Amino acid sequence: MSIKTKVGFIGLGAMGRGAVSNLLAKGFDVVGCDVRSDALDWLRAQGGTPACSLAELAAQVQIVVCFVVNSQQTEAVLFGDDGLVGELAAGAVFIACSTMDPSYVRALEGRLASHEISLIDAPVTGGAVGAERGTLTIMGSGTREAFDLALPVLRTFGSRVHYLGPAGSGAQMKVLNQLLCGVHLAAAGEALALAKHQGLPLDLTLEILSSGAASSWMLADRGPRMVAGQFDDISSAVDIIVKDMSLVLDATRESRFPAALAHAAHLAFLGTTARGLGAKDDSAVTTHYELAAGMP
Amino acid sequence: MSIKTKVGFIGLGAMGRGAVSNLLAKGFDVVGCDVRSDALDWLRAQGGTPACSLAELAAQVQIVVCFVVNSQQTEAVLFGDDGLVGELAAGAVFIACSTMDPSYVRALEGRLASHEISLIDAPVTGGAVGAERGTLTIMGSGTREAFDLALPVLRTFGSRVHYLGPAGSGAQMKVLNQLLCGVHLAAAGEALALAKHQGLPLDLTLEILSSGAASSWMLADRGPRMVAGQFDDISSAVDIIVKDMSLVLDATRESRFPAALAHAAHLAFLGTTARGLGAKDDSAVTTHYELAAGMP
Repeated sequence: MSIKTKVGFIGLGAMGRGAVSNLLAKGFDVVGCDVRSDALDWLRAQGGTPACSLAELAAQVQIVVCFVVNSQQTEAVLFGDDGLVGELAAGAVFIACSTMDPSYVRALEGRLASHEISLIDAPVTGGAVGAERGTLTIMGSGTREAFDLALPVLRTFGSRVHYLGPAGSGAQMKVLNQLLCGVHLAAAGEALALAKHQGLPLDLTLEILSSGAASSWMLADRGPRMVAGQFDDISSAVDIIVKDMSLVLDATRESRFPAALAHAAHLAFLGTTARGLGAKDDSAVTTHYELAAGMP
Repeated sequence: MSIKTKVGFIGLGAMGRGAVSNLLAKGFDVVGCDVRSDALDWLRAQGGTPACSLAELAAQVQIVVCFVVNSQQTEAVLFGDDGLVGELAAGAVFIACSTMDPSYVRALEGRLASHEISLIDAPVTGGAVGAERGTLTIMGSGTREAFDLALPVLRTFGSRVHYLGPAGSGAQMKVLNQLLCGVHLAAAGEALALAKHQGLPLDLTLEILSSGAASSWMLADRGPRMVAGQFDDISSAVDIIVKDMSLVLDATRESRFPAALAHAAHLAFLGTTARGLGAKDDSAVTTHYELAAGMP
């Protein structure tokens, strides 16, 4: 009988829970931390082990998966009071799955290396559904040695696990991914608001636009909510895409790359949140265009 | 034995030939006109009847399909020297499949009505392949009576034949379609140029971006040519999308609709043609971003 590998897991939100379920189902032990006590109750009910502190978690594992929201939370998990750094054993691997600024990630690798911790920068795409089904696309990067250690873990919740190069490459790829997601989402909002402005039948418009060369994943997924004008069923909030597009703009500015469409899309999301819709589903971007065009 | 319905057909380019092949295969007689004599030879070889003039064509038919390039050519076909108007019998139906300005189309309906000719505004999407296979999406509009007369003809080369409302609705829908095509195409160029700028592996980048929420029809279709940097295999030229996006901008200006993404995409295509790449495949828009970012 083999001894199960124990994995540390931080951040038990919708994405994290999906990943943990797959880790447990595929033979790993999971010791987890989250700021919310109901998340720890959930973990215990799944057969995992809640930890009372990051230090308690760090004492038990060589590999930690981190599914927090952004670089600020990642920084706190690692270097905050009661953070992992100083507690994790030499040789540990820290797998960061959050969407973060590539330049922050590159610097982080060096900061962790001085504590003999390897960073795997591994943002994901595929949403909560992909995490639950174990079908996430994972954009992995870091040293090849650390990536090989992380791979069995990543394969439990990702069906397309890619190795892209040095740490920061994963974050760069996620930036590209979000650039296209943001532009396609805003474009769907722009086109459907224009259709409404012109009095075209909206259901049929969406059917036609989704059927050919004008189609995108975002149009097919968010288009029906735009047509219905229903933004309370939240798949991802406007404020999240504002944050992601801010990362895109930061990365393009740092690269001295003039990304005109990314900027135009960002302005549409900013305009949406400026109207008080930041907590609504991101398909609400179509209302930015409606209001800008003087529609009621 | 039934007598075959004879249809007039003007514009035997790649799209037109596909449509004619389907008309002939599905039991219509076709009498055709084109400015190029090799196109008339092609029509004869297919079993159709070339006409020496538009007047000769007009004398034989009650329904005409027009697949010329734009509104200038449509205007010449109808109102130029030896044009159809004055020759077509009262009650004839003119089916315009070109991509044209909606306001031009709306005015055209009235101008034709005064000659007792009904206009069916029916732009298409699906490309030459769709025309050949009879699988075009057709955005039909005009009076319901005329549309019913046109329907058996349209169904020979379109598998999704929609009725959208008054003449001009089809042109409006095509404008929306081109808006999204143009934005998605430029966005693919922006993202892949940025990936190249950052030294990411391009084939893998395209695979990852095409696999999830960042995907679009344009990225999947034009992305491989962008990655290969190969723009001589021309599916559709940069100058065509410049023309189409100009129609989009005209339509949004007329509607007082601030379509920021459409404008940003248009500038990318203009920048591409300004570099002397207007006759290249429209995937060449990625070079606009490369050059703008100072890449060699």
